Amino acid sequence: MKETVRFGISLEGQLLNSFDELIHSKGYDNRSEAIRDLIRNSLVEEQWHEKDEETVGTVTLVYDHHTRELSDKLTEHQHSHHEAIISSMHIHLDAHHCLEVVVMKGKSRVIKKLADELISTKGIKHGKLVTTTTGKFL
Amino acid sequence: MKETVRFGISLEGQLLNSFDELIHSKGYDNRSEAIRDLIRNSLVEEQWHEKDEETVGTVTLVYDHHTRELSDKLTEHQHSHHEAIISSMHIHLDAHHCLEVVVMKGKSRVIKKLADELISTKGIKHGKLVTTTTGKFL
Amino acid sequence: MKETVRFGISLEGQLLNSFDELIHSKGYDNRSEAIRDLIRNSLVEEQWHEKDEETVGTVTLVYDHHTRELSDKLTEHQHSHHEAIISSMHIHLDAHHCLEVVVMKGKSRVIKKLADELISTKGIKHGKLVTTTTGKFL
Amino acid sequence: MKETVRFGISLEGQLLNSFDELIHSKGYDNRSEAIRDLIRNSLVEEQWHEKDEETVGTVTLVYDHHTRELSDKLTEHQHSHHEAIISSMHIHLDAHHCLEVVVMKGKSRVIKKLADELISTKGIKHGKLVTTTTGKFL
Repeated sequence: MKETVRFGISLEGQLLNSFDELIHSKGYDNRSEAIRDLIRNSLVEEQWHEKDEETVGTVTLVYDHHTRELSDKLTEHQHSHHEAIISSMHIHLDAHHCLEVVVMKGKSRVIKKLADELISTKGIKHGKLVTTTTGKFL
Repeated sequence: MKETVRFGISLEGQLLNSFDELIHSKGYDNRSEAIRDLIRNSLVEEQWHEKDEETVGTVTLVYDHHTRELSDKLTEHQHSHHEAIISSMHIHLDAHHCLEVVVMKGKSRVIKKLADELISTKGIKHGKLVTTTTGKFL
Repeated sequence: MKETVRFGISLEGQLLNSFDELIHSKGYDNRSEAIRDLIRNSLVEEQWHEKDEETVGTVTLVYDHHTRELSDKLTEHQHSHHEAIISSMHIHLDAHHCLEVVVMKGKSRVIKKLADELISTKGIKHGKLVTTTTGKFL
Repeated sequence: MKETVRFGISLEGQLLNSFDELIHSKGYDNRSEAIRDLIRNSLVEEQWHEKDEETVGTVTLVYDHHTRELSDKLTEHQHSHHEAIISSMHIHLDAHHCLEVVVMKGKSRVIKKLADELISTKGIKHGKLVTTTTGKFL
């Protein structure tokens, strides 16, 4: 089991009031949870600067599925890096547009490279990489 | 059908060389595709400043599924905004950690609010919203 | 005088170790200071979503001062919004390139508009807006 | 002299209309200038991933100058990296708050380290690094 530790922090009353308002509007139950999230975000961000760190990313792609050969190319890219791809999900946004989310696990440099390849494929209208975490060190 | 237009742009040879190198390393086939992506990104970014625009977002969540009541709470949040949620995907990263991707469609203010609620749920280790697009205006 | 309050937060020992490492590498003296910075950043970010909030921004511009009429245009933009501009600093990076930092104070929508105008001026090679704060509410 | 080259790009009429609207609202004179800015931004961003690249950054700091020893510490940090610091500008925002902009030139890893040190100094209320460019390769 993970042991929980407790420590005190001090800050100006005015700053704390502003923070309490913010986290209330975001739906947090308590300050500890909100501060843990700020801490974890700063760690995940740092981790992605280390190119050989094992981590997790998701790419969100929006495209018109009528674009010639696009589906074939996307499938091809994914197969050529199949060891890094865990899963993908496909959604029909309307008669023309699809949204695809690809979840990847591996070294951050590999995930970035594969994300670049997918996003740069002709016909992709918008693509973005989310750099997240395996959760292990958090 | 969408008509394609063509126009010329001018830039310094040195700048073009640097750009050609960059897009080659990212895997683009040609300059038009790379420039279209830059243009679309700038439009999608702008669109998310308009709070009443109909759009699409995905939230990536990483959490330890042993956290008490977490799955129930996530399901509850999603049901209370079911009209904005299109689909979600669940992945078992290891014995403890799950990754969940939730795809939402609706006004950007609604998507942001729902994303805040999901990310602030106690037990979520990392959460991030991708602001993308319905593809329609691109 | 601003009163200081103290409260306790709890988190997993492993997470705290990672955070201690991170803040040590960034040069923080103690956790309170590092956490206050995370809190203030989240507040400043939120504030910039409110378009009528009084705030402070700096624009960094890099350009070749040989570009015809560029200096005149920059001066003109700044004068047409002189009430929003507090000060600017000019640096000669090399024989060709200048860096200019313009500090602005006013409603966030006004600062953004002026920053857009400065950055879009023909001949500016790179421009970026930093959205900061008057410091008052932090 | 830098030679200018011209080339054609093709895109959907609808996308071009949206882009024309966007760049008009941002104050661009023409499409070439707006597209050059998108290209330069993508190059500057890439450059900052290379830790040994010679480049330029500015740090914006907001603080209460009544904080004990803060000015001394900031001066000390700057002197210990004096070879990387080109210049700094100081502004009195109100009776309590100062804004300081520090311009640095050097390897991106050195600039980031110095920026971290300045931002993490006790008493700094908000600090942000702008990663820009020497302008040379753009």
